[in-house]
Amino acid sequence: MERPPLPKGRERPLPLHPRYLPDDAWSTKRNIRFSDCDPAGIVYTPRFIDMANGVIEDFFLDQLRIDYHALIQKDRVGLGYKSVDTDFFKPAFMGDRLSFTVLMEHIGRTSIIFVIHCVRELEEVMRCRLVMVTTSLNTNNAINIPPDLKDALIAYRDSCR
Amino acid sequence: MERPPLPKGRERPLPLHPRYLPDDAWSTKRNIRFSDCDPAGIVYTPRFIDMANGVIEDFFLDQLRIDYHALIQKDRVGLGYKSVDTDFFKPAFMGDRLSFTVLMEHIGRTSIIFVIHCVRELEEVMRCRLVMVTTSLNTNNAINIPPDLKDALIAYRDSCR
Amino acid sequence: MERPPLPKGRERPLPLHPRYLPDDAWSTKRNIRFSDCDPAGIVYTPRFIDMANGVIEDFFLDQLRIDYHALIQKDRVGLGYKSVDTDFFKPAFMGDRLSFTVLMEHIGRTSIIFVIHCVRELEEVMRCRLVMVTTSLNTNNAINIPPDLKDALIAYRDSCR
Amino acid sequence: MERPPLPKGRERPLPLHPRYLPDDAWSTKRNIRFSDCDPAGIVYTPRFIDMANGVIEDFFLDQLRIDYHALIQKDRVGLGYKSVDTDFFKPAFMGDRLSFTVLMEHIGRTSIIFVIHCVRELEEVMRCRLVMVTTSLNTNNAINIPPDLKDALIAYRDSCR
Repeated sequence: MERPPLPKGRERPLPLHPRYLPDDAWSTKRNIRFSDCDPAGIVYTPRFIDMANGVIEDFFLDQLRIDYHALIQKDRVGLGYKSVDTDFFKPAFMGDRLSFTVLMEHIGRTSIIFVIHCVRELEEVMRCRLVMVTTSLNTNNAINIPPDLKDALIAYRDSCR
Repeated sequence: MERPPLPKGRERPLPLHPRYLPDDAWSTKRNIRFSDCDPAGIVYTPRFIDMANGVIEDFFLDQLRIDYHALIQKDRVGLGYKSVDTDFFKPAFMGDRLSFTVLMEHIGRTSIIFVIHCVRELEEVMRCRLVMVTTSLNTNNAINIPPDLKDALIAYRDSCR
Repeated sequence: MERPPLPKGRERPLPLHPRYLPDDAWSTKRNIRFSDCDPAGIVYTPRFIDMANGVIEDFFLDQLRIDYHALIQKDRVGLGYKSVDTDFFKPAFMGDRLSFTVLMEHIGRTSIIFVIHCVRELEEVMRCRLVMVTTSLNTNNAINIPPDLKDALIAYRDSCR
Repeated sequence: MERPPLPKGRERPLPLHPRYLPDDAWSTKRNIRFSDCDPAGIVYTPRFIDMANGVIEDFFLDQLRIDYHALIQKDRVGLGYKSVDTDFFKPAFMGDRLSFTVLMEHIGRTSIIFVIHCVRELEEVMRCRLVMVTTSLNTNNAINIPPDLKDALIAYRDSCR
């Protein structure tokens, strides 16, 4: 029985100088805490994904003005991820102050691609590409992006070109 | 000022039927806990990355017979990730029993590529590709993979062809 | 306006030699992982509470034979805590193998008091006292402990005297 | 062989109306995130302890003007806990905005007792009493509280009477 080929990696991105980030892009800051770091003294990898998740939550609440929590709990719309790709360019340390900028790569019918650039001063330390799929939490099937969310996403994408 | 192109996504892998996993590949099991799940009732994405991290730790200890903790704390060898790509094929729920199989995609001079296939019964629910770079925790620079680790990795790769 | 007195501390327990733990008490083991530890190189305090939470989950599943997950998700019975008191007698480190023994201090009408003794070899490193209250997840009010859970708790308590 | 008595619980505190908190006490706010909550839809207990830990970190940085991270990493002073007692008066939910006020109960030679009152609007939802012990991270033995930390703690305590 022939085994299918192993998954191919992707072309890795290079760190971006923050001057290339659009002026009107939304961003938020985080201080790296003691609890974010591991015995190697640097941010524990999954904590970066946890931060990215919280950054998207804040982006919904602060920029899109969409109630992320009500969408999940009242409307039973799942906002889970189909894939998450993360590149770590530099280690981050306790006490670092990091800026997370959210950009839109794609807005589809049932999926949205976010790219988060995480910057410390003038260097990008982490990049995260998240493919979100809107689902029904009752059936776990993909559903159309709710119209008000889609409108807000498109408006944001257009504003930060 | 021309902005460089946004990072391209990679070709997404398709879920693999577990019969294609090598017979002699190392695997470990995890029960999905209450604490692994979020208010949507499914595994919180970063917890999957946290599990993947722990799976690699157990792979070092149980299969490679390399003391992961001493390597970090005594020898000051960092075992951090340059990139982590994760695909979620199916949601996982509280009480699920998942099997994680570790395969080697590449063993380089200062980096190692692991692929983890996470399977529930006969379907792959998650795949994670981790590019580990061995570093000095004193300088944060890449260093050669320690010889005993490299030997153990090669032996494992050869054994599960 | 007179301010009420600050809460009084409790009499702190002393570490118990494990020979005093009942022979028939249920216990489970955990390896301390890299991810459980903080930049000080020891278990991060909240991870101990997270472990205690998982120990109670396993105690329900393995000893009481009560489906903890179904109780929460299907029956909508909350198994949250009214209080959690934790004493740390000794630091715990990466690679430690700890044993967690669960004892019953009290079984009431709507509340259950668990005491967890966490032991490394012959010394108790942590003790946790958890007051669980059974609630309706629809109203968040306390409800009677479900009869099959109560019977299983009483049987366990009687078995490890 | 006679078994020593089980640990006694403490007298549980009652929730405090926030008007009793000193006017000059330091406090900080947190939004309850999706990731803080569990499948029961409320804050996962250990996340509250994690928040309390971060509140103390911010209290050091913002109020005491003590570099918490340097104290641990450069000076190798451990700021771990000997005990943590937590009372949960009300459940907290996604989207809640909580205020955490830090008070001093005791400043000793090698230990400090903090009490955190966590308030949502006009009701206390959680209280946490943390006994911190300053240790040498080289020997894990208790050491005197560093003088500048002790001075800052005393000044704060005196300011919020």
